[in-house]
Amino acid sequence: MTDIALIEAAAARLHGHARETPLLNAPLLDRIAGRRILVKAECLQLTGSFKFRGAWSAITALPEGVQGVLAYSSGNHAQGVALAAARRGLSAVIVMPADAPAVKIANTRAYGAEVVTYDRATEDRDAIGSAIAAERGLALVKPYDDAQVIAGQGTTGLEIARQAAAAGVDRADVLVCCGGGGLTSGIALALEARAPGLRVRPAEPAGFDDTARSLASGQRERNAAASGSICDAIVTPSPGELTFPILKRLCGPGLVVSDDEALAAVALAFRHLRIVAEPGGAVALAAALFRGDQIAGDTVICTVSGGNVDPETFAEALRRPDLPLS
Amino acid sequence: MTDIALIEAAAARLHGHARETPLLNAPLLDRIAGRRILVKAECLQLTGSFKFRGAWSAITALPEGVQGVLAYSSGNHAQGVALAAARRGLSAVIVMPADAPAVKIANTRAYGAEVVTYDRATEDRDAIGSAIAAERGLALVKPYDDAQVIAGQGTTGLEIARQAAAAGVDRADVLVCCGGGGLTSGIALALEARAPGLRVRPAEPAGFDDTARSLASGQRERNAAASGSICDAIVTPSPGELTFPILKRLCGPGLVVSDDEALAAVALAFRHLRIVAEPGGAVALAAALFRGDQIAGDTVICTVSGGNVDPETFAEALRRPDLPLS
Repeated sequence: MTDIALIEAAAARLHGHARETPLLNAPLLDRIAGRRILVKAECLQLTGSFKFRGAWSAITALPEGVQGVLAYSSGNHAQGVALAAARRGLSAVIVMPADAPAVKIANTRAYGAEVVTYDRATEDRDAIGSAIAAERGLALVKPYDDAQVIAGQGTTGLEIARQAAAAGVDRADVLVCCGGGGLTSGIALALEARAPGLRVRPAEPAGFDDTARSLASGQRERNAAASGSICDAIVTPSPGELTFPILKRLCGPGLVVSDDEALAAVALAFRHLRIVAEPGGAVALAAALFRGDQIAGDTVICTVSGGNVDPETFAEALRRPDLPLS
Repeated sequence: MTDIALIEAAAARLHGHARETPLLNAPLLDRIAGRRILVKAECLQLTGSFKFRGAWSAITALPEGVQGVLAYSSGNHAQGVALAAARRGLSAVIVMPADAPAVKIANTRAYGAEVVTYDRATEDRDAIGSAIAAERGLALVKPYDDAQVIAGQGTTGLEIARQAAAAGVDRADVLVCCGGGGLTSGIALALEARAPGLRVRPAEPAGFDDTARSLASGQRERNAAASGSICDAIVTPSPGELTFPILKRLCGPGLVVSDDEALAAVALAFRHLRIVAEPGGAVALAAALFRGDQIAGDTVICTVSGGNVDPETFAEALRRPDLPLS
């Protein structure tokens, strides 16, 4: 089970291999939000998302003698596992939806992994991944429902705790882009131990708000659809078996934003923070900007969890005419 | 005169006000370059460029009793001065070319400054700025030819020295996007004192390579044109009176890239580093990527000096078909 000791141990293994990402802010963003926004820029992590943390944590915790790993992923976990495996001298097979952004598939291959695609609407990635892993004797690196993966993502929370303290913030909501809940639960565990005045709240796209609904009902709810949001990185069927009990115990209510709001956050992050956010990685920033009435306090912290986005999608976000300019 | 003591003093004044920007890298960029590239991401600085450092350094060194400041700038110094002045409770008038990117003019106004525009091809910004400053009793904050401005930009070099040492790099070329030479000379002075194995080399766009030619001839050369490059941030008539002697004493040969190569570097920074670089802020990265035959060693360091770019220009960079994909 993931606890603060497991997160600290993962942080020790990650040291010198993953990057401590900055906590950014911009006066003109604060003006839009009506409060100070501090942005944990995990798009600047190696492979362009927080997923490298969990992948490295899990792969460095594998038993001796493992020859290769397998992962199923919409693209960010894929790249994290591919690079982590390559740097440990392991082969990697990655099962990816055929409609994943081209940049994610290309980068995963460029890190040296073998990519196997499947149809997100009709096929079960868990079943496909398990079959290949069994057949080839590969160790499965799950995207979120794994104690060492959660511990690796939780190292983001250790950094947020230190960086928020350095910024003089000891009470705030911490909005986290939430798919299966690995990052959200990991950060929640880290903050519980290291910054108990910081409360995690998951952020999700409309129509894929399984975690918000699960937190409201007290049990794991599922999404009606398996695809259909531009926020591909965080479209998962339901909160994880391991992650949900952590979320239920530690998180405040979920926040839900539209795809249009996620794209507006992408454009505002471009303009004011000069970082590249992908739509799914921008939902927490979108919630900070556009759900201010559901947030208390003069400071809000949010993750930008990934920045792997196709140029066409990014250009589309920049073209939208209805952005607040300052 | 700027020396390491003045730079250290500027660093002390900047502490807690400017950001220590990260030194980023990406395995897939290294592959394109054939060597490791470490990127000092000053686009992540407050106001989106290193210029906030020099502005804060200069404004906090003004004598007591100054009521307001004036600056002339193509846009990045403008924003740096506007925010620094606002945070010190001073009024600011900024003289900007009428063809500056809209995002730069809008942001400068949003920080609270009064913007006065002029025609870059036919008018002399120094003359206009000096006249307004005299008329209104404003303190002029020059863009580069000022000891305190150079000292502020030099704090970037102190960080590079520490971050390169942490990355195990003690010998490398440090490519710096170069306009009037404030950042280039400041970094060169800091590295001379703190990391003498790191050698600064200016990077410029073709047609505006006044510094490269000046270093080659040993005297200050001028550009033939006053505008005409997409790299608006670093189009200046010639190296500065104060900066050139420093550049001449400390820098290696200049590197020159085309506008197309600068745009390709913008796109590759988007894809592999997930940062927003403006064309003029990407010329050093372009040189690292596309002038490898003029660089020695297994590691090169480069600045991405700014990220204030209009969405249309950025989208144009992403649309270019001839990019190496990995």
